Amino acid sequence: MEILTENQAILAKGYQSTGVWCGIKRAKKDLALFFSEQSASVAGVFTTNAVKGAPVLVCQEHLAYGCGRAIVINSGNANTCTGPQGLADSRRMAQLAAEALGVCTQEVFPVSTGVIGVPLPMDKIARGISAAVDSLAAGQLGDAAEAILTTDLRPKVISVGFGPDKRYTLTGIAKGSGMIHPNMATMLAFLLTDAPIGSAPLQSLLKEVTDETFNMISVDGDTSTNDTVLAFANGAAGGEPILLDSEVYAQLRAAFLAACTYLAKEIARDGEGASKLITIEVRGARNRQEARLAARSISRSNLVKTAIYGADANWGRVLCAVGYSGIDLELEKVKMSIGGLEVFAGGVPLPFDETCAREVLSQAEVTITVDLGVGSAGATAYTCDFTEDYVKINASYRS
Amino acid sequence: MEILTENQAILAKGYQSTGVWCGIKRAKKDLALFFSEQSASVAGVFTTNAVKGAPVLVCQEHLAYGCGRAIVINSGNANTCTGPQGLADSRRMAQLAAEALGVCTQEVFPVSTGVIGVPLPMDKIARGISAAVDSLAAGQLGDAAEAILTTDLRPKVISVGFGPDKRYTLTGIAKGSGMIHPNMATMLAFLLTDAPIGSAPLQSLLKEVTDETFNMISVDGDTSTNDTVLAFANGAAGGEPILLDSEVYAQLRAAFLAACTYLAKEIARDGEGASKLITIEVRGARNRQEARLAARSISRSNLVKTAIYGADANWGRVLCAVGYSGIDLELEKVKMSIGGLEVFAGGVPLPFDETCAREVLSQAEVTITVDLGVGSAGATAYTCDFTEDYVKINASYRS
Repeated sequence: MEILTENQAILAKGYQSTGVWCGIKRAKKDLALFFSEQSASVAGVFTTNAVKGAPVLVCQEHLAYGCGRAIVINSGNANTCTGPQGLADSRRMAQLAAEALGVCTQEVFPVSTGVIGVPLPMDKIARGISAAVDSLAAGQLGDAAEAILTTDLRPKVISVGFGPDKRYTLTGIAKGSGMIHPNMATMLAFLLTDAPIGSAPLQSLLKEVTDETFNMISVDGDTSTNDTVLAFANGAAGGEPILLDSEVYAQLRAAFLAACTYLAKEIARDGEGASKLITIEVRGARNRQEARLAARSISRSNLVKTAIYGADANWGRVLCAVGYSGIDLELEKVKMSIGGLEVFAGGVPLPFDETCAREVLSQAEVTITVDLGVGSAGATAYTCDFTEDYVKINASYRS
Repeated sequence: MEILTENQAILAKGYQSTGVWCGIKRAKKDLALFFSEQSASVAGVFTTNAVKGAPVLVCQEHLAYGCGRAIVINSGNANTCTGPQGLADSRRMAQLAAEALGVCTQEVFPVSTGVIGVPLPMDKIARGISAAVDSLAAGQLGDAAEAILTTDLRPKVISVGFGPDKRYTLTGIAKGSGMIHPNMATMLAFLLTDAPIGSAPLQSLLKEVTDETFNMISVDGDTSTNDTVLAFANGAAGGEPILLDSEVYAQLRAAFLAACTYLAKEIARDGEGASKLITIEVRGARNRQEARLAARSISRSNLVKTAIYGADANWGRVLCAVGYSGIDLELEKVKMSIGGLEVFAGGVPLPFDETCAREVLSQAEVTITVDLGVGSAGATAYTCDFTEDYVKINASYRS
């Protein structure tokens, strides 16, 4: 695999992308467009929140058609809790892009992120879409990556070359959990590949990989109303259709896993107020489900996140989070290390050098490893530390 | 009912209490003793965390014995993750108190709260127990309430007079979710009544009331390894044994509900770094289970807690928390008010006066009401707002 990130990342064959400013945000780019020159297989994974944004509902409708040509995204307004008008607006957003691009409305996927409860300013959206379509040919991947951000600090882009002679490319673009008033973290990710694969295998692949990556990150435990992951495969790089369980399928899956893992970690690292990326590795579990429960429980604990912020090797808080995760625990078999230091085994804490611990925990990346000692299954979760800035950002009155 | 709190609260008949300093804490009282002059029916509810402190395990053993004479509590050390020695120490703690009081070891309930992973200093505990027994006669309820605190700011005490001519008294003492390194919130509550009731009905009553009160508070979503609620009923006020479903039983239950609701709210109000008590009322649910899920989900949301800290009537974050609570939601039927202001109905936000909202949300107590509009069941949860101080306190390096 050939992995390129940030400015080095390239766009897969047969795609165009751009990002423009249409006036929803004060000054920053706020409308992005991804266009596939030929019809692509499409797959999607969406929020499990019972409150779903209008664009999520429209994407789910369009997904039923099974092929895609474009994704149009606006930031600054989530078009959520906007009633029937909101649904009409999201459909209109897809239709406007479809007309300008000369494709069917059902082949266009509308995505919105930002403030909720405020009607989408359709005049601005319309202007933005025509400007985006006009600039497509000259559009840069970086412009699109920038235009989907809310309060994220950095664009998140990766490309992965894979397959025989690296003939295929997978491009991944994401926005993270910057919270924008009055809404909560919204995660968006778009995965565009020029490999040839049908919508059905692409959907099962995307679901699997999402469960191992995006579904394993937690910034504050809240699940947004607009979370959306979309994948396109347009086959522009040629070759035989990739079949499940073929060797190329395995390479494609590895490419998706690499791209989504990178983007998931970047999202956690860029969590609001975050100063550290925390990786939680759970091993020795009876099964994957218990490993996931334990890892996610640790990743959601405010007490663990504040301890790591304080560079405190606080094994007690980690153990407590495992304890209430709902798994069946055999305390004497649990082994734990924080930042590589062994801190707990045999049911009791191990002596460790506090100064050394403080040093290790002051790094920008900290890994907590918990071996449950009762099996061979494992899972990894990602989160960020918890700082005063998180509170400051989220307590600041809407204005 | 006659309700007295703080210094006015009185101790039920036939009980003695005291609090002393035995040297686990630097200067503050750290060992409390409650003694019943006659054998009492006993009931207990304990943490659901898979990691349980040694004293919890010993209390559960002694509970099987069915009657109690004393509760001995130390603060400053939780005797958790201390291996087989920890179990022996908790048993020894009960035995020492039993010998000094002339009762059976199984009639004494040992309780510990504080730092975990550190062996209990048994010499200090032993000295403290004999000092406590010596001071019992002259002991004050306030001393006991003070001695069980960790980082709580205020003692939490209430007494409720109930029954015919208020002949019966229920005394409730609790400690809240002050976190003490390296441990997490530990909640302790002791309910002592002079009413005559058997252990079986007392246990079912305690379980019911705990579910409606202590199990509905959340400071940071973490569940401690040592949470303990113990109830004694010694019948010292005389009268016929109180039978389930009798009128006096209803009065006893009402007294327990009043006492535990008060203590639960005081615990939430006194959460670390908290500046406001937040009450979450969910109504119109299909059933009590869904009402509880929704109320608890809101009470655990960092985003809701930071918004209230910022005096922000952030209906979006509340709605989001209901959305991922796992209940089946009909958005158009949801009605929400924050601090008495109607903010959401019919699937869309309602216009409200931001200045007025800011005023209401700047009070020391804020109520969020969510009517799900699909039934008649309800539930109430309590939490506190989320401030920079919470992060400061919990990120501070152990020292």
